Amino acid sequence: MTITFIGSGNVAWHLSQALQQTGHSVTGIFSRNTATADALVQQLPQATRLPSLYLTDTHTDVVLIAVPDAALPQVAQELQVQPGTLVAHTSGSQPLHMLQTIAGARVGVFYPLQTFSKSKPLDLEQVPILVEATEQDTLQQLQQLAHSLTDKVHTAASGTRRQLHLAAVFACNFTNHLLGISQQLLQEASLTNELLQPLIQETIAKAMQQHPYSVQTGPAIRHDQIVIDTHLQMLQQHPHLQELYHLLTQSIQRTGTAE
Amino acid sequence: MTITFIGSGNVAWHLSQALQQTGHSVTGIFSRNTATADALVQQLPQATRLPSLYLTDTHTDVVLIAVPDAALPQVAQELQVQPGTLVAHTSGSQPLHMLQTIAGARVGVFYPLQTFSKSKPLDLEQVPILVEATEQDTLQQLQQLAHSLTDKVHTAASGTRRQLHLAAVFACNFTNHLLGISQQLLQEASLTNELLQPLIQETIAKAMQQHPYSVQTGPAIRHDQIVIDTHLQMLQQHPHLQELYHLLTQSIQRTGTAE
Repeated sequence: MTITFIGSGNVAWHLSQALQQTGHSVTGIFSRNTATADALVQQLPQATRLPSLYLTDTHTDVVLIAVPDAALPQVAQELQVQPGTLVAHTSGSQPLHMLQTIAGARVGVFYPLQTFSKSKPLDLEQVPILVEATEQDTLQQLQQLAHSLTDKVHTAASGTRRQLHLAAVFACNFTNHLLGISQQLLQEASLTNELLQPLIQETIAKAMQQHPYSVQTGPAIRHDQIVIDTHLQMLQQHPHLQELYHLLTQSIQRTGTAE
Repeated sequence: MTITFIGSGNVAWHLSQALQQTGHSVTGIFSRNTATADALVQQLPQATRLPSLYLTDTHTDVVLIAVPDAALPQVAQELQVQPGTLVAHTSGSQPLHMLQTIAGARVGVFYPLQTFSKSKPLDLEQVPILVEATEQDTLQQLQQLAHSLTDKVHTAASGTRRQLHLAAVFACNFTNHLLGISQQLLQEASLTNELLQPLIQETIAKAMQQHPYSVQTGPAIRHDQIVIDTHLQMLQQHPHLQELYHLLTQSIQRTGTAE
Protein backbone atom coordinates (compact mmCIF):
# COMPACT_ATOMS: atom_id res chain seq x y z
CA MET A 1 0.00 0.00 0.00
CA THR A 2 1.05 3.64 -0.39
CA ILE A 3 0.96 5.42 2.93
CA THR A 4 1.02 9.07 4.01
CA PHE A 5 1.83 10.08 7.58
CA ILE A 6 0.45 13.11 9.37
CA GLY A 7 2.90 13.81 12.21
CA SER A 8 6.62 13.26 12.62
CA GLY A 9 6.92 12.43 16.32
CA ASN A 10 8.00 9.19 18.00
CA VAL A 11 5.10 7.07 16.71
CA ALA A 12 5.35 8.29 13.10
CA TRP A 13 9.13 7.85 13.24
CA HIS A 14 8.99 4.13 14.10
CA LEU A 15 5.77 3.17 12.35
CA SER A 16 6.62 4.74 8.98
CA GLN A 17 10.06 3.12 8.80
CA ALA A 18 8.73 -0.29 9.87
CA LEU A 19 5.97 -0.16 7.24
CA GLN A 20 8.46 0.91 4.57
CA GLN A 21 10.71 -2.02 5.52
CA THR A 22 7.89 -4.56 5.24
CA GLY A 23 7.26 -3.60 1.62
CA HIS A 24 4.83 -0.72 1.83
CA SER A 25 5.64 2.62 0.30
CA VAL A 26 5.57 5.65 2.55
CA THR A 27 5.20 8.46 0.05
CA GLY A 28 4.46 11.55 2.12
CA ILE A 29 4.98 13.15 5.52
CA PHE A 30 3.09 16.18 6.74
CA SER A 31 3.98 17.82 10.04
CA ARG A 32 3.70 21.29 11.52
CA ASN A 33 7.28 20.70 12.66
CA THR A 34 9.10 20.91 9.32
CA ALA A 35 12.51 20.07 10.85
CA THR A 36 11.44 16.68 12.25
CA ALA A 37 9.40 16.05 9.09
CA ASP A 38 12.52 16.62 6.95
CA ALA A 39 14.55 14.32 9.23
CA LEU A 40 11.97 11.58 8.83
CA VAL A 41 11.70 12.08 5.04
CA GLN A 42 15.44 11.42 4.85
CA GLN A 43 14.87 7.97 6.40
CA LEU A 44 12.23 7.09 3.79
CA PRO A 45 13.47 6.68 0.18
CA GLN A 46 10.09 7.26 -1.46
CA ALA A 47 8.76 10.05 0.76
CA THR A 48 8.49 13.79 0.31
CA ARG A 49 7.43 16.40 2.84
CA LEU A 50 3.91 17.57 2.11
CA PRO A 51 3.16 21.31 2.33
CA SER A 52 -0.39 21.05 3.68
CA LEU A 53 -3.25 18.80 4.76
CA TYR A 54 -4.99 19.22 1.38
CA LEU A 55 -4.25 15.86 -0.20
CA THR A 56 -6.99 15.89 -2.84
CA ASP A 57 -4.37 16.01 -5.61
CA THR A 58 -2.19 13.32 -4.02
CA HIS A 59 -3.06 9.66 -4.41
CA THR A 60 -2.40 7.56 -1.31
CA ASP A 61 -4.07 4.34 -0.16
CA VAL A 62 -3.78 5.08 3.52
CA VAL A 63 -3.32 8.18 5.67
CA LEU A 64 -2.08 7.46 9.21
CA ILE A 65 -2.48 10.32 11.67
CA ALA A 66 0.14 10.19 14.44
CA VAL A 67 -0.21 13.50 16.23
CA PRO A 68 -0.80 14.40 19.91
CA ASP A 69 -4.43 13.88 20.90
CA ALA A 70 -4.83 17.61 21.43
CA ALA A 71 -3.96 18.25 17.77
CA LEU A 72 -6.27 15.56 16.41
CA PRO A 73 -9.51 17.63 16.17
CA GLN A 74 -7.84 20.29 14.04
CA VAL A 75 -6.19 17.72 11.77
CA ALA A 76 -9.56 15.98 11.35
CA GLN A 77 -11.14 19.29 10.44
CA GLU A 78 -8.49 20.40 7.94
CA LEU A 79 -7.54 17.12 6.28
CA GLN A 80 -8.88 16.63 2.73
CA VAL A 81 -8.34 13.38 0.85
CA GLN A 82 -9.39 11.70 -2.37
CA PRO A 83 -12.68 9.77 -2.05
CA GLY A 84 -12.23 6.24 -0.66
CA THR A 85 -8.88 6.90 1.03
CA LEU A 86 -8.45 4.99 4.28
CA VAL A 87 -7.71 7.45 7.10
CA ALA A 88 -6.81 6.10 10.54
CA HIS A 89 -5.53 7.70 13.71
CA THR A 90 -3.04 6.01 16.06
CA SER A 91 -4.34 7.28 19.40
CA GLY A 92 -5.08 5.08 22.41
CA SER A 93 -7.67 7.45 23.85
CA GLN A 94 -9.54 9.07 21.00
CA PRO A 95 -12.73 7.53 19.62
CA LEU A 96 -13.13 6.45 16.02
CA HIS A 97 -15.79 9.09 15.40
CA MET A 98 -13.16 11.85 15.75
CA LEU A 99 -12.49 11.26 12.07
CA GLN A 100 -16.08 11.29 10.81
CA THR A 101 -15.82 14.87 9.58
CA ILE A 102 -13.30 13.92 6.88
CA ALA A 103 -15.34 13.99 3.67
CA GLY A 104 -15.19 10.89 1.48
CA ALA A 105 -12.74 9.01 3.69
CA ARG A 106 -13.11 5.47 5.01
CA VAL A 107 -12.07 5.89 8.64
CA GLY A 108 -10.53 3.68 11.30
CA VAL A 109 -8.07 3.36 14.17
CA PHE A 110 -4.60 1.81 14.06
CA TYR A 111 -3.21 1.85 17.61
CA PRO A 112 0.17 0.26 18.36
CA LEU A 113 0.36 -0.53 22.07
CA GLN A 114 3.97 0.41 22.71
CA THR A 115 6.22 3.20 24.01
CA PHE A 116 8.17 4.84 21.21
CA SER A 117 11.37 6.86 21.54
CA LYS A 118 13.35 8.00 18.53
CA SER A 119 16.58 7.24 20.36
CA LYS A 120 15.90 3.49 20.70
CA PRO A 121 15.36 1.03 17.82
CA LEU A 122 12.29 -1.13 18.28
CA ASP A 123 11.18 -4.52 17.02
CA LEU A 124 7.52 -4.11 16.16
CA GLU A 125 6.94 -7.87 15.75
CA GLN A 126 6.16 -8.20 19.47
CA VAL A 127 3.87 -5.17 19.58
CA PRO A 128 0.09 -5.64 19.75
CA ILE A 129 -1.81 -3.44 17.30
CA LEU A 130 -5.45 -2.63 18.00
CA VAL A 131 -7.60 -1.82 14.99
CA GLU A 132 -11.13 -0.48 14.73
CA ALA A 133 -13.48 0.46 11.90
CA THR A 134 -17.20 0.49 11.29
CA GLU A 135 -17.06 -0.81 7.71
CA GLN A 136 -15.97 -4.42 7.23
CA ASP A 137 -13.68 -3.77 4.24
CA THR A 138 -11.97 -0.91 6.08
CA LEU A 139 -11.43 -3.17 9.09
CA GLN A 140 -9.96 -5.89 6.87
CA GLN A 141 -7.56 -3.44 5.25
CA LEU A 142 -6.40 -2.21 8.66
CA GLN A 143 -5.96 -5.78 9.86
CA GLN A 144 -3.91 -6.55 6.75
CA LEU A 145 -1.72 -3.49 7.33
CA ALA A 146 -1.22 -4.45 11.00
CA HIS A 147 -0.43 -8.08 10.11
CA SER A 148 2.41 -6.90 7.90
CA LEU A 149 4.09 -5.71 11.13
CA THR A 150 3.00 -8.14 13.84
CA ASP A 151 1.01 -11.32 14.55
CA LYS A 152 -0.63 -9.63 17.51
CA VAL A 153 -3.54 -7.89 15.82
CA HIS A 154 -6.68 -7.25 17.87
CA THR A 155 -9.96 -5.64 16.96
CA ALA A 156 -11.13 -3.39 19.79
CA ALA A 157 -13.90 -0.81 20.13
CA SER A 158 -13.04 2.72 21.23
CA GLY A 159 -14.13 2.11 24.85
CA THR A 160 -11.94 -0.96 25.21
CA ARG A 161 -8.97 0.74 23.62
CA ARG A 162 -9.34 3.68 25.97
CA GLN A 163 -9.35 1.40 29.02
CA LEU A 164 -6.27 -0.40 27.76
CA HIS A 165 -4.55 2.93 27.23
CA LEU A 166 -5.31 4.01 30.80
CA ALA A 167 -3.84 0.76 32.15
CA ALA A 168 -0.82 1.31 29.91
CA VAL A 169 -0.22 4.76 31.41
CA PHE A 170 0.13 3.16 34.86
CA ALA A 171 2.19 0.19 33.62
CA CYS A 172 4.51 2.16 31.35
CA ASN A 173 4.54 5.95 31.74
CA PHE A 174 4.18 6.02 35.53
CA THR A 175 6.48 3.03 36.04
CA ASN A 176 9.14 4.70 33.92
CA HIS A 177 8.84 7.83 36.04
CA LEU A 178 9.38 5.86 39.26
CA LEU A 179 12.47 4.25 37.75
CA GLY A 180 13.63 7.79 36.95
CA ILE A 181 13.12 8.92 40.54
CA SER A 182 15.04 5.89 41.71
CA GLN A 183 17.97 6.77 39.42
CA GLN A 184 17.84 10.38 40.57
CA LEU A 185 18.11 9.25 44.22
CA LEU A 186 21.03 6.96 43.36
CA GLN A 187 22.81 9.79 41.55
CA GLU A 188 22.30 12.12 44.50
CA ALA A 189 23.95 9.47 46.68
CA SER A 190 26.77 8.95 44.11
CA LEU A 191 25.69 5.35 43.56
CA THR A 192 25.64 3.46 40.28
CA ASN A 193 22.23 2.42 39.01
CA GLU A 194 23.58 -0.99 37.97
CA LEU A 195 23.17 -2.06 41.57
CA LEU A 196 19.40 -1.96 41.20
CA GLN A 197 19.10 -3.75 37.86
CA PRO A 198 18.74 -7.31 39.21
CA LEU A 199 16.08 -6.04 41.59
CA ILE A 200 14.14 -4.32 38.82
CA GLN A 201 14.35 -7.36 36.56
CA GLU A 202 13.11 -9.67 39.30
CA THR A 203 10.28 -7.26 40.16
CA ILE A 204 9.05 -7.31 36.57
CA ALA A 205 9.53 -11.07 36.12
CA LYS A 206 7.49 -11.68 39.27
CA ALA A 207 4.75 -9.26 38.25
CA MET A 208 4.41 -11.08 34.92
CA GLN A 209 3.89 -14.44 36.64
CA GLN A 210 1.59 -13.53 39.52
CA HIS A 211 -0.75 -10.68 40.32
CA PRO A 212 1.52 -7.88 41.57
CA TYR A 213 -0.74 -7.22 44.57
CA SER A 214 -0.12 -10.80 45.74
CA VAL A 215 3.68 -10.48 45.64
CA GLN A 216 3.99 -6.94 47.03
CA THR A 217 7.03 -6.53 49.28
CA GLY A 218 8.63 -3.61 51.14
CA PRO A 219 7.99 -1.39 54.14
CA ALA A 220 4.51 -0.22 53.05
CA ILE A 221 2.91 -3.67 52.88
CA ARG A 222 4.69 -4.69 56.11
CA HIS A 223 3.33 -1.52 57.76
CA ASP A 224 6.92 -0.92 58.87
CA GLN A 225 6.37 2.63 60.11
CA ILE A 226 9.96 3.05 61.34
CA VAL A 227 11.32 2.59 57.83
CA ILE A 228 8.54 4.66 56.26
CA ASP A 229 9.29 7.57 58.61
CA THR A 230 13.03 7.29 57.93
CA HIS A 231 12.42 7.40 54.18
CA LEU A 232 10.08 10.39 54.44
CA GLN A 233 12.74 12.21 56.45
CA MET A 234 15.42 11.33 53.88
CA LEU A 235 13.22 12.92 51.20
CA GLN A 236 12.81 16.23 53.02
CA GLN A 237 14.77 18.06 50.31
CA HIS A 238 12.14 16.86 47.80
CA PRO A 239 8.67 17.67 49.20
CA HIS A 240 6.92 16.41 46.05
CA LEU A 241 8.69 13.05 46.36
CA GLN A 242 7.65 12.89 50.02
CA GLU A 243 4.05 13.39 48.91
CA LEU A 244 4.39 10.71 46.24
CA TYR A 245 6.02 8.28 48.70
CA HIS A 246 3.23 8.89 51.19
CA LEU A 247 0.43 8.38 48.66
CA LEU A 248 1.97 5.25 47.13
CA THR A 249 2.48 3.80 50.62
CA GLN A 250 -1.18 4.47 51.46
CA SER A 251 -2.28 2.95 48.17
CA ILE A 252 -0.23 -0.22 48.78
CA GLN A 253 -1.64 -0.55 52.27
CA ARG A 254 -5.25 -0.34 51.05
CA THR A 255 -4.84 -2.92 48.26
CA GLY A 256 -3.05 -5.81 49.87
CA THR A 257 -1.72 -7.80 52.74
CA ALA A 258 1.87 -9.01 53.21
CA GLU A 259 2.72 -12.55 52.15
CA MET B 1 30.05 -22.14 58.41
CA THR B 2 27.21 -23.08 60.75
CA ILE B 3 24.42 -20.54 60.53
CA THR B 4 21.39 -19.74 62.68
CA PHE B 5 18.50 -17.65 61.35
CA ILE B 6 16.34 -15.35 63.41
CA GLY B 7 13.12 -14.93 61.40
CA SER B 8 11.24 -17.18 58.99
CA GLY B 9 9.83 -14.67 56.47
CA ASN B 10 10.61 -14.21 52.79
CA VAL B 11 14.26 -13.23 53.26
CA ALA B 12 15.08 -16.02 55.72
CA TRP B 13 13.24 -18.49 53.47
CA HIS B 14 15.42 -17.84 50.41
CA LEU B 15 18.70 -16.95 52.10
CA SER B 16 18.81 -19.97 54.42
CA GLN B 17 18.13 -22.47 51.63
CA ALA B 18 20.63 -20.82 49.28
CA LEU B 19 23.35 -20.89 51.97
CA GLN B 20 22.58 -24.52 52.78
CA GLN B 21 22.86 -25.39 49.07
CA THR B 22 26.27 -23.72 48.73
CA GLY B 23 27.75 -25.93 51.44
CA HIS B 24 27.01 -24.09 54.66
CA SER B 25 25.06 -25.71 57.42
CA VAL B 26 21.93 -23.94 58.62
CA THR B 27 21.45 -25.50 62.04
CA GLY B 28 18.76 -23.42 63.71
CA ILE B 29 15.70 -21.25 63.03
CA PHE B 30 14.07 -19.03 65.61
CA SER B 31 10.85 -17.19 64.81
CA ARG B 32 7.92 -15.86 66.80
CA ASN B 33 5.81 -17.46 64.08
CA THR B 34 6.31 -21.13 64.92
CA ALA B 35 4.28 -22.34 61.91
CA THR B 36 6.47 -20.66 59.29
CA ALA B 37 9.56 -21.59 61.32
CA ASP B 38 8.52 -25.26 61.20
CA ALA B 39 7.86 -25.01 57.46
CA LEU B 40 11.33 -23.59 56.89
CA VAL B 41 12.99 -26.19 59.17
CA GLN B 42 11.47 -28.87 56.94
CA GLN B 43 13.37 -27.42 53.98
CA LEU B 44 16.70 -27.54 55.84
CA PRO B 45 18.08 -31.03 56.61
CA GLN B 46 20.32 -29.94 59.48
CA ALA B 47 18.09 -27.37 61.13
CA THR B 48 15.90 -27.45 64.23
CA ARG B 49 13.49 -24.83 65.46
CA LEU B 50 14.97 -22.96 68.41
CA PRO B 51 12.72 -22.21 71.41
CA SER B 52 14.18 -18.81 72.31
CA LEU B 53 16.75 -16.12 71.56
CA TYR B 54 19.07 -17.40 74.32
CA LEU B 55 21.72 -19.12 72.23
CA THR B 56 24.49 -19.21 74.84
CA ASP B 57 24.34 -23.02 74.96
CA THR B 58 24.21 -23.38 71.17
CA HIS B 59 27.36 -23.14 69.06
CA THR B 60 26.87 -21.33 65.74
CA ASP B 61 29.43 -19.41 63.66
CA VAL B 62 26.94 -16.90 62.33
CA VAL B 63 23.54 -15.59 63.37
CA LEU B 64 21.61 -13.84 60.58
CA ILE B 65 18.69 -11.72 61.71
CA ALA B 66 15.99 -11.47 59.03
CA VAL B 67 13.03 -9.85 60.80
CA PRO B 68 10.94 -6.73 60.02
CA ASP B 69 12.81 -3.55 60.95
CA ALA B 70 10.23 -2.84 63.62
CA ALA B 71 11.12 -6.11 65.39
CA LEU B 72 14.88 -5.59 65.19
CA PRO B 73 15.34 -3.52 68.41
CA GLN B 74 13.67 -6.18 70.53
CA VAL B 75 15.65 -9.00 68.91
CA ALA B 76 18.87 -7.05 69.48
CA GLN B 77 17.93 -6.59 73.12
CA GLU B 78 16.97 -10.21 73.83
CA LEU B 79 19.49 -12.12 71.72
CA GLN B 80 22.29 -13.79 73.68
CA VAL B 81 25.11 -15.63 71.91
CA GLN B 82 28.42 -17.29 72.70
CA PRO B 83 31.38 -14.86 72.75
CA GLY B 84 32.85 -14.22 69.30
CA THR B 85 29.75 -15.24 67.36
CA LEU B 86 29.20 -13.18 64.21
CA VAL B 87 25.74 -11.57 64.33
CA ALA B 88 24.48 -9.68 61.27
CA HIS B 89 21.12 -8.19 60.33
CA THR B 90 19.75 -8.18 56.78
CA SER B 91 17.97 -4.82 56.76
CA GLY B 92 18.38 -2.15 54.13
CA SER B 93 17.48 0.70 56.44
CA GLN B 94 18.80 -0.10 59.88
CA PRO B 95 22.28 1.03 60.96
CA LEU B 96 25.00 -1.36 62.05
CA HIS B 97 24.96 0.04 65.58
CA MET B 98 21.49 -1.44 66.15
CA LEU B 99 23.32 -4.62 67.14
CA GLN B 100 25.88 -3.10 69.51
CA THR B 101 23.90 -4.13 72.58
CA ILE B 102 24.51 -7.83 71.92
CA ALA B 103 27.16 -8.80 74.47
CA GLY B 104 30.24 -10.57 73.15
CA ALA B 105 29.09 -10.62 69.54
CA ARG B 106 31.06 -9.47 66.51
CA VAL B 107 28.42 -7.51 64.60
CA GLY B 108 27.77 -6.63 60.97
CA VAL B 109 25.24 -6.20 58.18
CA PHE B 110 24.44 -8.67 55.39
CA TYR B 111 21.90 -7.01 53.08
CA PRO B 112 20.76 -8.79 49.90
CA LEU B 113 19.38 -6.19 47.48
CA GLN B 114 16.45 -8.16 46.12
CA THR B 115 12.68 -8.68 46.44
CA PHE B 116 11.89 -12.04 48.00
CA SER B 117 8.61 -13.93 47.75
CA LYS B 118 8.22 -17.47 49.03
CA SER B 119 6.08 -18.33 46.03
CA LYS B 120 8.84 -17.68 43.47
CA PRO B 121 12.22 -19.45 43.27
CA LEU B 122 15.14 -17.08 42.98
CA ASP B 123 18.67 -17.28 41.62
CA LEU B 124 20.80 -15.44 44.12
CA GLU B 125 23.87 -15.41 41.84
CA GLN B 126 22.67 -12.16 40.23
CA VAL B 127 21.83 -10.48 43.54
CA PRO B 128 24.13 -7.80 44.96
CA ILE B 129 24.89 -8.28 48.65
CA LEU B 130 25.98 -5.27 50.70
CA VAL B 131 28.07 -6.00 53.75
CA GLU B 132 29.24 -3.78 56.58
CA ALA B 133 31.28 -4.25 59.77
CA THR B 134 33.59 -2.14 61.90
CA GLU B 135 36.15 -4.89 62.55
CA GLN B 136 38.23 -6.05 59.61
CA ASP B 137 38.02 -9.80 60.37
CA THR B 138 34.24 -9.56 60.76
CA LEU B 139 33.98 -7.76 57.42
CA GLN B 140 36.11 -10.43 55.74
CA GLN B 141 33.94 -13.22 57.13
CA LEU B 142 30.79 -11.47 55.86
CA GLN B 143 32.40 -10.96 52.45
CA GLN B 144 33.33 -14.64 52.34
CA LEU B 145 29.77 -15.65 53.24
CA ALA B 146 28.34 -13.31 50.57
CA HIS B 147 30.80 -14.56 47.93
CA SER B 148 29.53 -18.09 48.45
CA LEU B 149 26.23 -16.84 46.99
CA THR B 150 27.16 -14.14 44.46
CA ASP B 151 30.04 -12.33 42.78
CA LYS B 152 28.34 -9.02 43.43
CA VAL B 153 29.58 -8.26 46.93
CA HIS B 154 29.85 -4.61 47.96
CA THR B 155 31.01 -3.02 51.18
CA ALA B 156 28.74 -0.11 52.09
CA ALA B 157 28.34 2.05 55.17
CA SER B 158 24.93 2.35 56.82
CA GLY B 159 24.16 5.72 55.22
CA THR B 160 24.88 4.46 51.72
CA ARG B 161 22.86 1.29 52.25
CA ARG B 162 19.93 3.32 53.51
CA GLN B 163 19.97 5.54 50.39
CA LEU B 164 20.13 2.50 48.16
CA HIS B 165 17.18 0.99 50.00
CA LEU B 166 15.11 4.14 49.50
CA ALA B 167 15.86 4.08 45.76
CA ALA B 168 14.92 0.39 45.73
CA VAL B 169 11.52 1.15 47.27
CA PHE B 170 10.73 3.41 44.30
CA ALA B 171 12.21 1.05 41.69
CA CYS B 172 10.73 -2.15 43.08
CA ASN B 173 7.94 -1.82 45.65
CA PHE B 174 6.24 1.21 44.11
CA THR B 175 6.76 -0.02 40.54
CA ASN B 176 5.21 -3.37 41.46
CA HIS B 177 2.21 -1.55 42.91
CA LEU B 178 1.68 0.42 39.68
CA LEU B 179 1.81 -2.82 37.70
CA GLY B 180 -0.83 -4.14 40.12
CA ILE B 181 -3.07 -1.11 39.51
CA SER B 182 -2.64 -1.62 35.79
CA GLN B 183 -3.71 -5.28 36.07
CA GLN B 184 -6.66 -4.28 38.23
CA LEU B 185 -7.82 -1.81 35.58
CA LEU B 186 -7.45 -4.46 32.87
CA GLN B 187 -9.46 -6.94 34.92
CA GLU B 188 -12.22 -4.40 35.50
CA ALA B 189 -12.38 -3.96 31.71
CA SER B 190 -12.31 -7.77 31.16
CA LEU B 191 -8.99 -7.50 29.29
CA THR B 192 -6.08 -9.92 29.48
CA ASN B 193 -2.88 -8.54 30.99
CA GLU B 194 -0.80 -10.30 28.31
CA LEU B 195 -1.63 -7.38 26.02
CA LEU B 196 0.55 -5.09 28.14
CA GLN B 197 3.57 -7.37 28.54
CA PRO B 198 5.52 -6.20 25.46
CA LEU B 199 4.95 -2.61 26.57
CA ILE B 200 6.19 -3.32 30.09
CA GLN B 201 9.25 -5.17 28.82
CA GLU B 202 10.15 -2.35 26.44
CA THR B 203 9.65 0.23 29.20
CA ILE B 204 12.12 -1.57 31.46
CA ALA B 205 14.63 -2.29 28.68
CA LYS B 206 14.61 1.40 27.73
CA ALA B 207 14.97 2.56 31.34
CA MET B 208 18.03 0.31 31.74
CA GLN B 209 19.73 1.86 28.70
CA GLN B 210 18.97 5.55 29.13
CA HIS B 211 17.93 7.77 32.00
CA PRO B 212 14.17 7.22 32.36
CA TYR B 213 13.50 10.96 32.54
CA SER B 214 15.03 11.33 29.07
CA VAL B 215 12.76 8.69 27.49
CA GLN B 216 9.52 9.55 29.27
CA THR B 217 6.47 9.15 27.03
CA GLY B 218 2.71 9.48 27.52
CA PRO B 219 0.07 12.17 28.04
CA ALA B 220 1.72 13.75 31.11
CA ILE B 221 5.03 14.63 29.45
CA ARG B 222 3.15 15.78 26.30
CA HIS B 223 0.94 17.98 28.53
CA ASP B 224 -1.96 16.36 26.67
CA GLN B 225 -4.68 17.72 28.96
CA ILE B 226 -7.53 16.20 26.95
CA VAL B 227 -6.25 12.67 27.60
CA ILE B 228 -5.37 13.45 31.21
CA ASP B 229 -8.90 14.73 31.87
CA THR B 230 -10.43 11.69 30.16
CA HIS B 231 -8.33 9.35 32.30
CA LEU B 232 -9.20 11.17 35.52
CA GLN B 233 -12.87 10.89 34.60
CA MET B 234 -12.49 7.16 33.87
CA LEU B 235 -11.07 6.71 37.38
CA GLN B 236 -13.97 8.39 39.14
CA GLN B 237 -14.95 5.11 40.81
CA HIS B 238 -11.48 5.03 42.41
CA PRO B 239 -10.80 8.43 44.02
CA HIS B 240 -7.44 7.29 45.44
CA LEU B 241 -6.29 6.24 41.96
CA GLN B 242 -7.42 9.63 40.63
CA GLU B 243 -5.23 11.27 43.27
CA LEU B 244 -2.28 9.02 42.40
CA TYR B 245 -2.75 9.68 38.66
CA HIS B 246 -2.85 13.42 39.30
CA LEU B 247 0.26 13.44 41.50
CA LEU B 248 2.30 11.22 39.16
CA THR B 249 1.29 13.40 36.20
CA GLN B 250 2.43 16.52 38.09
CA SER B 251 5.68 14.84 39.06
CA ILE B 252 6.41 13.82 35.45
CA GLN B 253 5.68 17.34 34.26
CA ARG B 254 8.13 18.89 36.73
CA THR B 255 11.00 16.52 35.96
CA GLY B 256 11.22 16.45 32.21
CA THR B 257 10.42 17.62 28.74
CA ALA B 258 9.07 15.52 25.89
CA GLU B 259 11.53 14.11 23.38
